[in-house]
Amino acid sequence: MEGELVVDLGRADKADNLADCLDGDLTALPAIASYPIVSVELLPVIPNPGKILCIGLNYATHVAETGREQKEYPAVFTRWADTLVAAGQPLVRPRESTKFDYEGELALVIGKPGRRISRDDAMAHIAGYAVFNDGSVRDWQQHNIQFTPGKNFPDTGGFGPELVTPDEVDDVTALRVQTRLNGQLVQDQPISDLIWDIPFLVSYCSTFTHLDPGDVILTGTPGGVGAKRKPPLFMKEGDTVVVTIDTIGSLTNPIVDEPA
Amino acid sequence: MEGELVVDLGRADKADNLADCLDGDLTALPAIASYPIVSVELLPVIPNPGKILCIGLNYATHVAETGREQKEYPAVFTRWADTLVAAGQPLVRPRESTKFDYEGELALVIGKPGRRISRDDAMAHIAGYAVFNDGSVRDWQQHNIQFTPGKNFPDTGGFGPELVTPDEVDDVTALRVQTRLNGQLVQDQPISDLIWDIPFLVSYCSTFTHLDPGDVILTGTPGGVGAKRKPPLFMKEGDTVVVTIDTIGSLTNPIVDEPA
Repeated sequence: MEGELVVDLGRADKADNLADCLDGDLTALPAIASYPIVSVELLPVIPNPGKILCIGLNYATHVAETGREQKEYPAVFTRWADTLVAAGQPLVRPRESTKFDYEGELALVIGKPGRRISRDDAMAHIAGYAVFNDGSVRDWQQHNIQFTPGKNFPDTGGFGPELVTPDEVDDVTALRVQTRLNGQLVQDQPISDLIWDIPFLVSYCSTFTHLDPGDVILTGTPGGVGAKRKPPLFMKEGDTVVVTIDTIGSLTNPIVDEPA
Repeated sequence: MEGELVVDLGRADKADNLADCLDGDLTALPAIASYPIVSVELLPVIPNPGKILCIGLNYATHVAETGREQKEYPAVFTRWADTLVAAGQPLVRPRESTKFDYEGELALVIGKPGRRISRDDAMAHIAGYAVFNDGSVRDWQQHNIQFTPGKNFPDTGGFGPELVTPDEVDDVTALRVQTRLNGQLVQDQPISDLIWDIPFLVSYCSTFTHLDPGDVILTGTPGGVGAKRKPPLFMKEGDTVVVTIDTIGSLTNPIVDEPA
């Protein structure tokens, strides 16, 4: 991105392989053509991540509103890639749900493979940041003690608009995650409030699984989710949800109901 | 398999794509060559499943020993494909664990794609059955409320020796899951004791996610896991664990400790 222009670096054929895509100095590549952002159809930031690790209960405000106990380690659940939609694409409330909820989050995209990455090395494994909306089908999330069903309906995870490389971000922890539903500010918290910080998350996750380029770590959502409001506030057809993280970007998705 | 002989159907190049592999009538394919099973190095039944859905808390004996509440729906957590090992390969206790546990299970392998598959159609979507050992790093499983870290260390899931097609199984629910650690029978229960039966699991999982050929559903483990024994019984280097499901097969894995 240069301002409102998308610069084509001729790497679209490598978009599924972030290692190839990031190989070399992106800024040294010839710019083939530029397109206004409004003329381009975006895909999810990483269309097909091998692993999407979702961190739960990582802001004290959210832990408190869920009534859960603060543990020594974060909760980790997963999504599959077929849950992802790009910025501008609709998030879909499935037929089975009346409790479709937003969760604004900072996403980390892994750029360099590793296992048992130390805290000190962690930041060097991050290719960049993006905005994520971890859309949650609460009725199915609460079926039992594991979150998988509520986090894996198709087209429930907004991921975009773009990857922002670390060199463009001064101090990511100083940024705020803000979620607005139909213009109403419903989540607003600085990333510095993370209970387990970014180096810890990379280190912890890479202890139990190998991380590869294109893998995604979602860092958790702040307090203010719809399910815990009084009265509850869920997303429905015609709504618009926007997650903004200052310089990382603004992710807008309309909500549609899946046809019966 | 024909007795102790592995028959090469010339489809090894399609092994990652079960739809192609199962396309057509396997019994009508020419047999290229046969090899004694002992001369062959097995891979996991499906080396790279797109999705591995693990059902938790699906036998009353196991629900009871965990002290958890029986819910209206099963628990569903996930594994990634890089956790899988074949029959005969070692299951690896990671450096981080002193609580590496066995979980004998019946695995369902999906053969036909589908979403919102009805109970009545469910069995037609199953390509076959296999034996699974859902090896669990209990210390990491208990870090927080989601099981992901404890179920995703590399080389912790035994999957084999082979896929058994439904035509070879008279009544799968009549079979018993039996786990033996160093010869001691530690789990022994009929599949008819499943709280949520096989058609329900296919139907339920396919409601929240699309199932594709090669996807795997692990049906849950009976009571008798090592963590809930008094005293606890965990796996360590030099042990041998065997999960047997009558006509489906017998899955043997030695245990090794990961080098420091």
